[in-house]
Amino acid sequence: MRPTPPGPERFPAWTEEKLRIADTDLNGHINNGAIGALFEAGRGELLTEIAGLPQARAVAIALARVEIDYLRELHYPGRVRIGTFVARIGGSSFALQQGLFAGEACHAAALSVMVALDRETRRATAVPPALRAALERLQPP
Amino acid sequence: MRPTPPGPERFPAWTEEKLRIADTDLNGHINNGAIGALFEAGRGELLTEIAGLPQARAVAIALARVEIDYLRELHYPGRVRIGTFVARIGGSSFALQQGLFAGEACHAAALSVMVALDRETRRATAVPPALRAALERLQPP
Amino acid sequence: MRPTPPGPERFPAWTEEKLRIADTDLNGHINNGAIGALFEAGRGELLTEIAGLPQARAVAIALARVEIDYLRELHYPGRVRIGTFVARIGGSSFALQQGLFAGEACHAAALSVMVALDRETRRATAVPPALRAALERLQPP
Amino acid sequence: MRPTPPGPERFPAWTEEKLRIADTDLNGHINNGAIGALFEAGRGELLTEIAGLPQARAVAIALARVEIDYLRELHYPGRVRIGTFVARIGGSSFALQQGLFAGEACHAAALSVMVALDRETRRATAVPPALRAALERLQPP
Repeated sequence: MRPTPPGPERFPAWTEEKLRIADTDLNGHINNGAIGALFEAGRGELLTEIAGLPQARAVAIALARVEIDYLRELHYPGRVRIGTFVARIGGSSFALQQGLFAGEACHAAALSVMVALDRETRRATAVPPALRAALERLQPP
Repeated sequence: MRPTPPGPERFPAWTEEKLRIADTDLNGHINNGAIGALFEAGRGELLTEIAGLPQARAVAIALARVEIDYLRELHYPGRVRIGTFVARIGGSSFALQQGLFAGEACHAAALSVMVALDRETRRATAVPPALRAALERLQPP
Repeated sequence: MRPTPPGPERFPAWTEEKLRIADTDLNGHINNGAIGALFEAGRGELLTEIAGLPQARAVAIALARVEIDYLRELHYPGRVRIGTFVARIGGSSFALQQGLFAGEACHAAALSVMVALDRETRRATAVPPALRAALERLQPP
Repeated sequence: MRPTPPGPERFPAWTEEKLRIADTDLNGHINNGAIGALFEAGRGELLTEIAGLPQARAVAIALARVEIDYLRELHYPGRVRIGTFVARIGGSSFALQQGLFAGEACHAAALSVMVALDRETRRATAVPPALRAALERLQPP
């Protein structure tokens, strides 16, 4: 049983990306790792919007865990849209749920656990209030 | 609470890979997606050994789901070893548990669900007996 | 002495691409190889437009040689535009000149020699008349 | 007329790399950009040996220009060896000639122009004497 991915109406934030030849592999489709890089692109764009550029954030934000379900093969060329919502907010971590869509079809879903790290010590630290408030606005209705 | 990854003694199959500059990112460490590509390299080497080259297999073997825990940052340059064992064998799918080690330290763990596909129809099909027997020999003691 | 790259007014064909975190490296900038992939993306988009999808072309079109001048460091995040013109058309090959621009600044220039290959024998073959005519329309004024 | 690449006996320095599934593309072969990343891996290993880790060098060493000739298609899986010699040493730059071999066959050749940069100002600076001496030992006989 494959999981049912969230429909596009669930995602408040969207990123558009273009597929590249270098994203394909010998199976003739977009490589699984490239799909991971597209989800990362979506997270990066969203986090830059709400927390500033990586070098300028109050805390470092690191990926602690990712789960990806590959639901349908994806083929070059084309554009995809990556939708993101905030699935959970904890003390020093939060989780982002994402869907990768080509047209209306969801080709992959990802759940990413992000941890806030102190920029000096690189140890887990509290999600700052401004970031927490921005994340709360990105929870699904 | 981070998961405790399996120790190296659990893994019957190993792949060695070298880190490349192109695997790094602006955080100064090995990119999360590159770590995914290293796990894929380990799975590819193992599957080629037990099931033949991708183009020559009795069934196609596709990645349906992957979970990766990023446990410790990894830095260029260096060599890593990727250990793999078979965590589960089902009717038309199986799961591979992997650990990525630099020296004795486990930097990331992955659980991958692989599905056997009919090469013509691209639909899920039974894991062939020879592949099943090979997978059984790669289960942990 | 660095070469003077062609100005943007020389390029009749343009592709827009977005930089990804996975394109960066430990130097904190966009990796040289990623810049190569962006030029490849520009060539791929143009060739798909004038010669059809890779799987459906009258001839295969392979890269025989590439020269890239790295003129200015490029940083994440951002969008870039890749301009392309046809620099030379030979019997069985042609050359594409490209410039990669962020805003008005040219960050890299590439000259790529492409060879037409017979799809069966994989040997060099004449550039088909329809492709030649399309290439001629992409020469600079 | 394709250039005749230097034979393996010309190269004093060698790097071994393993091909990965993520290095392949929809043409079923190793992607041109991945071949660029393999040459970069060879340069990185050599420069780390003679000039220290990137973060610890007396000068930064940047790629200013690369020329790659793609001579033969390369296929997954396999190991390749990248040979490197120093083709030219100038005041603030030097050139590395490389060949990428699978078995005895040369699949690609690269000529890379590297520039020494002051770590603070990021402007071209003289190749330091110790690096110059190491480069001289890597010129072909």
